[in-house]
Amino acid sequence: MEWNNVLATRNARMKASEIRELLKLLDQPDIISFAGGIPDPALFPTEAFRDAFSAALTGPKAGAALQYSVSEGYRPLRDWIVAEMGKIGVPCTADNILITSGSQQALDYLAKLMISPNDTVLVGWPTYLGALGAFNAYEPSYDRLDPNTNRPAADFATKAEAAGGRVKFAYLSVDFANPTGETIARSARESVIDLADEMDIAVVEDAAYQTLRYDGEAIPPILALEIARKGSIENCRTLYCGSFSKSLAPGLRVGWVCGASEVISRLVLMKQAADLHSATTNQIVTHHVASTQFDAHVAKLRSTYQARRDHLLKALAREMPDGVSWTKPEGGMFIWLTLPETMDGADLLAQSLQSERVAFVPGRAFFADGSNGNTVRLSFSCADEAAIDEGMKRLGRLIRAQA
Amino acid sequence: MEWNNVLATRNARMKASEIRELLKLLDQPDIISFAGGIPDPALFPTEAFRDAFSAALTGPKAGAALQYSVSEGYRPLRDWIVAEMGKIGVPCTADNILITSGSQQALDYLAKLMISPNDTVLVGWPTYLGALGAFNAYEPSYDRLDPNTNRPAADFATKAEAAGGRVKFAYLSVDFANPTGETIARSARESVIDLADEMDIAVVEDAAYQTLRYDGEAIPPILALEIARKGSIENCRTLYCGSFSKSLAPGLRVGWVCGASEVISRLVLMKQAADLHSATTNQIVTHHVASTQFDAHVAKLRSTYQARRDHLLKALAREMPDGVSWTKPEGGMFIWLTLPETMDGADLLAQSLQSERVAFVPGRAFFADGSNGNTVRLSFSCADEAAIDEGMKRLGRLIRAQA
Repeated sequence: MEWNNVLATRNARMKASEIRELLKLLDQPDIISFAGGIPDPALFPTEAFRDAFSAALTGPKAGAALQYSVSEGYRPLRDWIVAEMGKIGVPCTADNILITSGSQQALDYLAKLMISPNDTVLVGWPTYLGALGAFNAYEPSYDRLDPNTNRPAADFATKAEAAGGRVKFAYLSVDFANPTGETIARSARESVIDLADEMDIAVVEDAAYQTLRYDGEAIPPILALEIARKGSIENCRTLYCGSFSKSLAPGLRVGWVCGASEVISRLVLMKQAADLHSATTNQIVTHHVASTQFDAHVAKLRSTYQARRDHLLKALAREMPDGVSWTKPEGGMFIWLTLPETMDGADLLAQSLQSERVAFVPGRAFFADGSNGNTVRLSFSCADEAAIDEGMKRLGRLIRAQA
Repeated sequence: MEWNNVLATRNARMKASEIRELLKLLDQPDIISFAGGIPDPALFPTEAFRDAFSAALTGPKAGAALQYSVSEGYRPLRDWIVAEMGKIGVPCTADNILITSGSQQALDYLAKLMISPNDTVLVGWPTYLGALGAFNAYEPSYDRLDPNTNRPAADFATKAEAAGGRVKFAYLSVDFANPTGETIARSARESVIDLADEMDIAVVEDAAYQTLRYDGEAIPPILALEIARKGSIENCRTLYCGSFSKSLAPGLRVGWVCGASEVISRLVLMKQAADLHSATTNQIVTHHVASTQFDAHVAKLRSTYQARRDHLLKALAREMPDGVSWTKPEGGMFIWLTLPETMDGADLLAQSLQSERVAFVPGRAFFADGSNGNTVRLSFSCADEAAIDEGMKRLGRLIRAQA
């Protein structure tokens, strides 16, 4: 069969993720990897989940825990999230929350909700690779959003029209973003609201790493800043995507979207049509573990990851030659290296795997236009001190040799 | 905010499911419901799942059970499915299997893979409402496929061209279909392959109820018949959607697609971009329970549901007035009633809820063109004998009064 005859046009935009291909290399035991960007499984609250599954599947409620459930999500979990959102300046109700299968699915559904082919999405340069992957399925154009510069709204609008559509939303990862580890300042968050108001577009706020702050002062989410201006979440254009993947465990696939109920109810229809609902059992146990030990568990994660970040920053300062610069993130899992302009992250990786056995993610894939090849993402979430020391020694040596 | 300014065109096609709205009524204790179409939770292998979760989250592999995993799905589960598919005439390898979050998600991804706006999908009249819901997000036209009549391929093609696209695939639920309970005969399955070959389109075979046969002889899946003709799954255009929702439990959201590896690898990219992977833990425990007790458990389901079907058929024969006819399914969960032509299933439901307190699903929503309102779907999966007797007595009385 000639499958090309029956494929939708979107397939031209869907390619294998570089990171995913890279992850296959991690199985080789002699590789020192800074590539993953996944949480350290040794830190998962495994016992708490085991107890929670056992409780959910015992007694008269066990049948319901394995049964179909509502597309909105498990009500006690939505209520727990409502309370958490309240703590970060987002007063809301359960009608403002949809449970998704990880925040990745929230990105997919929000793109599905808003993007017709040739519409424009504003994204950072670089931005989260998985967001570009999710959005690509709906065939958008991209334009560069830099919240620290005040590019006029008319400029975005003209470019979007030339691409054959309209700007639909701005996408931003606000805290310790993947891939750079950088945090968007409060003033820049306010500018994003200004721009969105002026253009009448939505804002998709990716808060996947929000809980993992190691130092510095917490900045309110864009959604909180917008509610402060407009009085109620129902008047807001920001859609906040949260996740338990980095705070508890990713394998259960539980995340959420928080936004105006008008949008949430549309997303509920979309989820119902796409996969009915996220796994019932997983929502019940996530609620159980979150409501009994979320804060204590996240405190433990913070202290462990903070030590790894500090160690990696020290190793970089010690091992990297002149001409290499890097971010100093206040949280999250990533540090972003900028190499000398003549170097390419992908070439460096190929060399590194061959001669130094150190893995990382080349930066080009994080740019919607494939520019800025002289960049590299390092993750410190799963690296121990010895691996960091040895890995940076090798990487510094390789860069020095190439430069 | 004026959300209409940022919505994709597909939103015009996405509406609340009648069934879902109906399910809200089931909470009222005095309603006798034949509406649900969900498995009986009393039959779930609850203890087996509890043990499986406990085992998965104990010992050195516990971290991996809560970690991110590959988009294709958990390899041992894919291998188990490969063996099962072999038993029903579908020799294949793990490269032919993608794990999805229920077979509903398989329908969503297959539509996403193939449908550009205005392409045509061939569906039964009636067909599974959830398939129409999943497909609608990609803005297709529908044309009527009746595998028992030989409408010429040119006729479908002309109509699809007039709609502004091409026929992309035929969708069929083959065994004890939702909503009619009917099974597509072997000769009709062969005709579907002929038609698909002639038109160079794909076939999406929904086998969600495949394991629930109570009598009659099993008919090979369309995919098996096509492999018998063409020698290998790699030469086939049929994509088989399977599910554990009806055989084990739906709340874990585990299903699969089986088809040519060229298509599976594209679906893997799609899944990676949309939700990364189905929940790791759920795949592990599904493998555990399936590999230890699938056949014994399904045998138990069959004998329980068969008795309920038999009881409902007897009650219908006893209670329904002349002018009402119904299907005699060889398996599954549904019986389909055709009322006198002057009656409407939705009106009947409104009356019934008011005066008789009996719930069912009006048939119109299962027709892509909203025709055939004089139909009703009854589910016997969760009804006990007393409820069936009383419910049919009341429903027969109401229909007699209305006719």
